[in-house]
Amino acid sequence: MHASRTCGTRTPPASEGLSRRRAGRPFAAILDKTRITSAALEIIGRKGYDGLTMAGLAKQLEVAPSALYNHVTAKRDVLQLAEDHLISMVDVSLFGRAPWEEAARIWAWSYRDVFAQHTSLIPVIAVLPVTNAPQTLEMYETVTRAFAAAGFPQNLIVSSIVAFESFIFGSAYDVTAPDDIFEAGSTVDSTPHFRAALKAGRVNERPADTAFELGLEALIAALARSLC
Amino acid sequence: MHASRTCGTRTPPASEGLSRRRAGRPFAAILDKTRITSAALEIIGRKGYDGLTMAGLAKQLEVAPSALYNHVTAKRDVLQLAEDHLISMVDVSLFGRAPWEEAARIWAWSYRDVFAQHTSLIPVIAVLPVTNAPQTLEMYETVTRAFAAAGFPQNLIVSSIVAFESFIFGSAYDVTAPDDIFEAGSTVDSTPHFRAALKAGRVNERPADTAFELGLEALIAALARSLC
Repeated sequence: MHASRTCGTRTPPASEGLSRRRAGRPFAAILDKTRITSAALEIIGRKGYDGLTMAGLAKQLEVAPSALYNHVTAKRDVLQLAEDHLISMVDVSLFGRAPWEEAARIWAWSYRDVFAQHTSLIPVIAVLPVTNAPQTLEMYETVTRAFAAAGFPQNLIVSSIVAFESFIFGSAYDVTAPDDIFEAGSTVDSTPHFRAALKAGRVNERPADTAFELGLEALIAALARSLC
Repeated sequence: MHASRTCGTRTPPASEGLSRRRAGRPFAAILDKTRITSAALEIIGRKGYDGLTMAGLAKQLEVAPSALYNHVTAKRDVLQLAEDHLISMVDVSLFGRAPWEEAARIWAWSYRDVFAQHTSLIPVIAVLPVTNAPQTLEMYETVTRAFAAAGFPQNLIVSSIVAFESFIFGSAYDVTAPDDIFEAGSTVDSTPHFRAALKAGRVNERPADTAFELGLEALIAALARSLC
């Protein structure tokens, strides 16, 4: 199934050509979707997705914009390449080889971890059509097949996946929240219950993980019950 | 509890002063946090939060930047006003007056609906400290008190709220997703299971609501069981 894929491979190499330029004889690294994806992720990581422009991307790749347009026709295509590459890093390896709950657990944690590193892409991926995003479609196919085999009602499989993803995207943001996000400042006296709960919650060393595990296990348990 | 609050009221009036300007005698509407909040939300809705600048906000309010700085010291303050105002629109009215499951259900649906109208603020609210955001703190206090009264383990109350919020924020994006988000494009043949599940799911008229209900009820059911 993988052989025909030409983009979104798991580990795009760094843009070697940029550092291998030889004096007097410019070395033109072959421009392909892997290089475009790497450069786009680099720019998005630095400037957010609003900071990604076709002109900026061409400059980063040291090519003329026209060369870039031979591979991607618009920023939307570039975002889809970036999104599809990130999805290729999500672990779906246990689906079909372990009970679906266990596979879904590994999938969801790795999905959250990948997007916690790229939260600026969440507003994009959450609403970007998957058309021509082969790794993303493959992930959906793998998860769907496993959910169907487990006995999920057919008409609720896509909704279940979306519910997982919504929780995963929101939780990815939470990973990046500052430690003091719940500090109450000057209005502290009016929130005695909240303050007490915050204090009690300090036993959880990694609060984002505690909240994620709680919600994820809730989703898995409820879906497991719906199969009975 | 509400009397001392001076910002983030539930319904900020439109900036009347701007249309009541009288010829030859400029009418200066009183600049307060309510007007600043309205103007900020208007700009954010139009340009996203990256498009909000202190200079642009002063211009929108027809005041000198120095006048603006008398009320807010930085863009971060403005975002907090906007965030706190949105939170004031979330329905917490049933907490303490109905079973916690029912109150949480109304709270979560209204919370999702408010942020589905303002998804560009999600990356902000998800990581913005609540210091000096009185409506936000009041919401947390109300929910915490109800969860504690229901018998939630004290050390897991904040994590439970965060799990709900993560799901709510991710689901707010899903409300804005285009209908064709899962269209497979040219690679359609490699995803037979996913295509079949998509087709079966078309019985759900409002897919974002189906997914939200599924996940929300899962969270509520699992948390309810943890109380037994």
